[in-house]
Parts: sequence; C-alpha cells; structure tokens
Amino acid sequence: MSVSVELAPLDSAAMAAAQEHLDRLTKPPGSLGRLEAVVVQLAGITGSAAPRIDRPAVVVFAGDHGVTAQGVSAYPGSVTAQMVANFEAGGAAINVLARAAGARLVVVDVGVAGPGPAPSSRIRAGTRDMTVEPAMARGEALAAIGIGRDVVGRLVGDGCDVVALGEMGIGNTTAAAAVCAAVMGGGAADWTGRGTGVDDEGLARKLEAVEAASARARGLPPLDVLREVGGAELVAIAGAAVEARRRSMPVVLDGFVVGASVAPLHVAHPGALDHCLAGHRSAEAGHALLLERLAMTPLLDLGLRLGEGSGALVAVPIVRLAAAAVTDVATFEEWGLA
Amino acid sequence: MSVSVELAPLDSAAMAAAQEHLDRLTKPPGSLGRLEAVVVQLAGITGSAAPRIDRPAVVVFAGDHGVTAQGVSAYPGSVTAQMVANFEAGGAAINVLARAAGARLVVVDVGVAGPGPAPSSRIRAGTRDMTVEPAMARGEALAAIGIGRDVVGRLVGDGCDVVALGEMGIGNTTAAAAVCAAVMGGGAADWTGRGTGVDDEGLARKLEAVEAASARARGLPPLDVLREVGGAELVAIAGAAVEARRRSMPVVLDGFVVGASVAPLHVAHPGALDHCLAGHRSAEAGHALLLERLAMTPLLDLGLRLGEGSGALVAVPIVRLAAAAVTDVATFEEWGLA
Repeated sequence: MSVSVELAPLDSAAMAAAQEHLDRLTKPPGSLGRLEAVVVQLAGITGSAAPRIDRPAVVVFAGDHGVTAQGVSAYPGSVTAQMVANFEAGGAAINVLARAAGARLVVVDVGVAGPGPAPSSRIRAGTRDMTVEPAMARGEALAAIGIGRDVVGRLVGDGCDVVALGEMGIGNTTAAAAVCAAVMGGGAADWTGRGTGVDDEGLARKLEAVEAASARARGLPPLDVLREVGGAELVAIAGAAVEARRRSMPVVLDGFVVGASVAPLHVAHPGALDHCLAGHRSAEAGHALLLERLAMTPLLDLGLRLGEGSGALVAVPIVRLAAAAVTDVATFEEWGLA
Repeated sequence: MSVSVELAPLDSAAMAAAQEHLDRLTKPPGSLGRLEAVVVQLAGITGSAAPRIDRPAVVVFAGDHGVTAQGVSAYPGSVTAQMVANFEAGGAAINVLARAAGARLVVVDVGVAGPGPAPSSRIRAGTRDMTVEPAMARGEALAAIGIGRDVVGRLVGDGCDVVALGEMGIGNTTAAAAVCAAVMGGGAADWTGRGTGVDDEGLARKLEAVEAASARARGLPPLDVLREVGGAELVAIAGAAVEARRRSMPVVLDGFVVGASVAPLHVAHPGALDHCLAGHRSAEAGHALLLERLAMTPLLDLGLRLGEGSGALVAVPIVRLAAAAVTDVATFEEWGLA
C-alpha cells in the first residue's frame, strides 16, 4: 500500500522572513522562546511570513478494534459507539474543550462497531483481530485514507487554518503499540502502556497481543503496517496528515495513538511530518519514546491521557498566540525605539 | 514592614466537590492529568465547585532600578519608560498576546524613572542603588503594596476572574536575584542569569551587585527584603498577590521576577501562595530553582524569557480550558453510560 505524499519542503523564504520579523520586534532577540520556533515553522508550512491561526478545527476519528476480544482494555468495545454518540450530543470532554477554544469539532466514524445505520464514512464495523489476521483489507485501508484526506480537504475549503487530530477507539493503544513496534523497532514492552487504565492481567494480555501482532507486521512497508495491525481511525489520521501537508495546513498532533498513526509516514518519507506540531506529551507509556524518535518536542506536558484530540486542542491556543506574535507586534522601528 | 495576609485556607469542600465531579465525567479517571489538579485548585481558591474563568486580566507593573548604574543590564534604563509607552500605545508583545487571549491588559507605572508627568501610581522615579543603600523607603514600599492591592481590587470589582501578573523593568532580574538570595539562601550564582541578554562582563558585574545587595538584606524579615533590594514593581506584585488571595481570585505568575516578588510571602507565611499557579518555567537562570523552592510545577515550559506577563498570559487559556472541563462536561450518569 502506498500513498502519494507530495513532499514540497517547507517554504524557506517565508521562514526567513518570519525570523527576520521576530528579530525586529520590540523585545530582546529570542525572548519568546519556543513560540518563535513555532512561528517560523508555521511560516514554512503556510508559505506566509505572517501566518494567521484564527479558525482551528479538531477532528476525532473513531474506530473499533477486533483485538479487544483478547481482553486488552479497561473498557468494553461498546464504549466507542457510546462515546461517539456522546461527542455528537455535545457532552464529552472534547466538546467542552472545543467550545472553550473556539474550535470546530468534526467527529468521523470511520470504523466503529456500533449499532444503528452505518454512516457513509464507516469503512467497516471494527477491525479484525490483528493478533491473528490483517486488521483491514487493502481496499478498506485505502478507503480510510480517502476519508481522512476528504475531511481535511473540506476543512481547508471552509477556511480552517489549523487542524488538531484526535481519536477515539477502545483498544487503539494496543494497535498503536503494535504499529510502533513494527515500524520503529523495539519490543512490545517499549510501546505498551495501560491505555485507559487496564489492570495488571489485562496489561499482560495486551503485551502478548502487541508482541504477536507486531511480529506479523515487522518488515512490511510502513503504510502497510497501519493496515495490518493499525485501525481504521489510525489510517484515516495518516490520510488527514497527508492531505494537510498537500494543502499547507498546520497539524497539531494529540497523543500516542495519533503519533503512531503518522509515524509510518515519517519512516517512509523523512520530512513528511514537518507540518506537524506535537501538542503534548501524553502520560501513555510509549509516547515519550515515540516523540523522541519523531524528533518532536511537545508544546505541553500536562499528563493528559484522554485522547479525543484533547491534548492537541489544549495546545491550539498556544499555537494561535505564537502566530499572533508576528502578525500583530510592532517592530522597534515602527515604535521609534533604538 | 509587614502586610496583613488573610490566610483563609482553600475551600476544601469545593475542592472535594470539584474532584467528585471530575470523577463522574464521561472519561477515564485522572485522564485530564494536570488539568484536573488545576480545576481542584481553582475550586479551592474561588470556593466554587464549578469555577468559571471567563474574564482574564494581565497586569504589568513597571519600575526602574538604581542598580542599573552598575552596568548590570543589556539595555539602558531608559528602555523601561519606552516600553511602558509602547504598552500604552498597544505595540508590545504583551498587547498582542492579551488581545489574542481575550485578556484585559493593565499597565501600572509604579516606579519608572521616565520623563513626563508622573502618574499618581508612581511611588518614586526609579529605586536607589540597592548595592549601597535601601532601594526604597518604608513609606514608598507601603505605597507600592497599596497600589498592587488597589489594582486587583478594581479588577475584581470589574468582574475579572483570573489575573496574570507580569512586570517590566530594566535591571529587575538583578533585584529579583538579590531578593531570592536573601530570602531563600544560596549564593548570587544560584539566582543570577543573563536577564534580557547581558554579556559576560555585565554578568560578572551583576553577580557582584547581587552578592553585595543580598549580603546587606540577609536576615531581614522577608517583606523588608523586598523593600531593601527589590523594586517598586516587585513590591506592587506582592501586594497584588495578597489582595487576590483576600478576594478569592486565582493568580497566574509569570517568570523569575514575578516569582521573586511573591517568594517573601511564601517564606513569611507558608500557604500564602496557594492561590497562585506558575504559568511557565522561564529560561532565566534561577527560575527553575525558585519554582522548586516554591513547590510549584509550571504549566508551560516554552523557554520564554520576555517578562511583561507573557509566560503567565500564554498559560491563561490552559487554566480557562481546565475550568471549562468541570463547568461544562456531562457526567456518565447524565449521558446514560455505564
């Protein structure tokens, strides 16, 4: 499986112009710290020396996982559908955070196993059990990529200027750990944590599942790993990231599952994630290591482990404030200061 | 010099109610990480189990420092007045950040040595050189405390529900280092950094100045240290923090100088800063140590070293999002989930 990733490098002229503007502001050079690096990156992504981040969106891709049959999660798989209903009704943490942050929230059921009529975006009702067979068929994975790309394309069309990527799916930290072990190397123990809070016995089963699945997937091309042991929402996230790059849209990544979803892009095409910022370092074991391997420094480190895009969304106001610093600050010259 | 600090403990009933609400939300327990601790602290400060953070303010207290005569800063003292004019004209980084964050900005010239008619808030035109004599007279310091208290009192009256405290003053990291060395112990080298970017020779002069000043101040009652080797803006910040406590108003602290301004309150009255959150860990040497001594974990660690309240203000959206998580999230019961 391959995806055409159009890898135009970041716009170095816009980056230089943004840096130059930063250096002429009425402040000591470098005094805005990491915010200055964010601004320069945003300039490179968007091609504008004065990028505006005014219309954020957060997309939550949801899917179920056949591997939950192995008893790897603290919650039953049925909770995924319940939480999607909760998102749609506006009652989940991410709804509140999105409202408070002024962000548009889009929820995409790309592979939930819930009851009721399947939305057109659903590529299948939960994946197969990755410990024994491929999680998805090739055509299903390609459909999921297309769904991720379409969502971002529509957001760009609607004028959104930054997208936070999130996920919901009982069992998906198991899938994410298997993806990481397969594409990044290391053993199951390096990548497997307690997810939403599985107990010791569940953790032992989870480790076994990750070991079995990643052993099957190791050596496959990176994007095929996503199909083999990932999940519909992971594949859709990868598609969303690819489309965002093509559309010059900055992406803020949530935690471990989202990071694992895009990691194969990084492995396949170094530089493929240059338009992505790590919103936070999640408390999920494995995320710190993954960020290190992706050479990403997270904006926040607040011990979040909710998923749903929450850690990405909490970082969006920081990205927005950073952008404001170059679009709206007077320079020394403009203010007549020496 | 003493200040009546009314130290009602945080409201433990409101804190318990906020925690209970968090535990009933449609999310795994503890999954919002540090945001949950912030919510509980806000509940304790405000006495409400569902605290609202909707109307933030940032106050920048500005003052000049006689110690700049010793060549301790990368910028001449005249820049303080220029920056205050810049704040008032709306062209500084903090203006932009405040606009972007929806925060009210209040600039208080409490001791600038600039030209033009002195505002009524100015207690003197720059401090005396703390290396050889007390920076302020007792009456001047008491006036500065009153100014800080009055500003916060007015903000509470206007309906503001969180205040970020910031400062501007060429030379004030020298004063802050002297305060820390005098009230926290340690040598000048533990607390002295490059401020806005002083060179090696300037840093050597700064170390000498901090050593001389802190040696004179060591052993004084903590609040008298602020008068002896602090600055007008440092004293006003301490006053603002005291008033915020009295008014049940959460405070977000900026970097090293603001931390040093309130440190004497902590030393004099353990618990006096229970209503304060550290907005960030500044890149200024000494701030990490100070936060450790104050037992505060910063919300952000973005390498900012601008001052002006910028690091506190960038953290305000996080505090706001945290509060929204308890005021606006449905519980499992409300959504009919198991």
